Amino acid sequence: MKKSNISIIGGVGRMGSWFGRFFETAGHEVNSIEGKDVEQIRQAAGRSDVVIVSVPIGETCEVIEKVGPYVKAESLLMDLTSLKAEPVEYMLKYSESEVIGTHPLFGPDAESLKDQTVILCPARANRWFAWLTDILSAQGARLEIISPEKHDRIMTIVQAMAHINTMLMGFLIKELNENLSDLKRYSTPLFRVQMALVGRLFAQDPRVYAEIIAHNPEVKHAVAVYSALLGDIKKCVDEGEAGHIAHALSDASTFFEPIEAESLATSRVLLRALTSSQDIARSE
Amino acid sequence: MKKSNISIIGGVGRMGSWFGRFFETAGHEVNSIEGKDVEQIRQAAGRSDVVIVSVPIGETCEVIEKVGPYVKAESLLMDLTSLKAEPVEYMLKYSESEVIGTHPLFGPDAESLKDQTVILCPARANRWFAWLTDILSAQGARLEIISPEKHDRIMTIVQAMAHINTMLMGFLIKELNENLSDLKRYSTPLFRVQMALVGRLFAQDPRVYAEIIAHNPEVKHAVAVYSALLGDIKKCVDEGEAGHIAHALSDASTFFEPIEAESLATSRVLLRALTSSQDIARSE
Repeated sequence: MKKSNISIIGGVGRMGSWFGRFFETAGHEVNSIEGKDVEQIRQAAGRSDVVIVSVPIGETCEVIEKVGPYVKAESLLMDLTSLKAEPVEYMLKYSESEVIGTHPLFGPDAESLKDQTVILCPARANRWFAWLTDILSAQGARLEIISPEKHDRIMTIVQAMAHINTMLMGFLIKELNENLSDLKRYSTPLFRVQMALVGRLFAQDPRVYAEIIAHNPEVKHAVAVYSALLGDIKKCVDEGEAGHIAHALSDASTFFEPIEAESLATSRVLLRALTSSQDIARSE
Repeated sequence: MKKSNISIIGGVGRMGSWFGRFFETAGHEVNSIEGKDVEQIRQAAGRSDVVIVSVPIGETCEVIEKVGPYVKAESLLMDLTSLKAEPVEYMLKYSESEVIGTHPLFGPDAESLKDQTVILCPARANRWFAWLTDILSAQGARLEIISPEKHDRIMTIVQAMAHINTMLMGFLIKELNENLSDLKRYSTPLFRVQMALVGRLFAQDPRVYAEIIAHNPEVKHAVAVYSALLGDIKKCVDEGEAGHIAHALSDASTFFEPIEAESLATSRVLLRALTSSQDIARSE
């Protein structure tokens, strides 16, 4: 395989440096650039085979606009952000290079690409598409090819609304000012799983979550729907109507039947893992 | 240990029969009674050392009112429901027996009591308290003694609001009519955990969830607070304001600092368990 020169704009960030190490290990020359110095970015872009934009969502399009015209037509321009429609549109508009929108569905804690999903939105891709898929598959990544629009629609649920859901549980606990040690002491196994998700979210960079939510235009509609659904539950609760809640649950259960067996199996695996983690904590 | 005669009203239900087997294994005589036949219930109550009410929350107080007067003063009356204030109040009012409100924080899938939490609200307990705690601790249960009021306040979050939170994610996915296989294919590891909780909830008896929510008087306030918090997020989303969302997240992160390390450790255990379960599914 030919050694490529890869510039990662934002290569000092957590995901940027993860991919920097990844491409270096794969035998390429990696040039990590902090995202601010436009002159340095343009020079690097002009002499690179692959230019990867890995800056916060809110800065992605701006950076693409600045760097795009300097990427050579025979090179590849790709981004790593959690949204795809707008960045891909900008890459196509501001560059003549090949373009592949890329979204690794894992965080910088991942030890390797094995079994990790990477979504690819090849927008103007030819020889670089084979190069990228080869290099990712060789390390065991699961690749999914979809359109930027479908990507953003699905991420509305998988990321934005899932984060909002977890955030709300956290905000509620804080607002009711409940004692965290009490919650832990009197916790059910399932609640321990939920609390781990809440605690994890509030331990991460708030900007990442905020941008995934605020920059996806489909989130507005989803939040409005969520809000209406909460209104229905609120009405049942205010009326003390167990029957209506049970009815709504049982209505929706048909929709979730296809994942019933798998959900039960997976949740059992999770609950069993929790128990062993308690054993480990106790023996330490 | 003296062999006791134990009547379980609702002993044919899943939790009732779980405890029936448990007490039988511990060497006691267990009398399982379906919850409907009042005459049969009263006769059993009159000749039992321990009477356990294990019927749906919505029927608990009614059953206590009917059976309470027949339980002997030297016997123990206890319930197993997920709420404690009202059932304990009814047991104290309608019986002269000893009274211990009991809430096992696990479901009928549990293989044993080992490491499971059981909350006890001893309301008029003397010699039966030692009997019950001995028998539960001997099998490795973690016992927590709190007041019925504190129990119900904490369960507002640990059960009712946690269930509402999970339900809402499910209702949203159904309402947006998203394709479940797509969600799975394009799922992040964290979303797989959330989906397992959603799929599990909709696979269970809707009545149990509905009653935990509708019969706890503190849930009204908590839902109102949750609703207001969602209103704040909705406003930020409508304005496309990433900064405000990031600010709210970073504000709350201080509150969750005490559980940060543990949440990261636990979520890592969960994510690792997920990966191995994928390996198992694939090799099968």
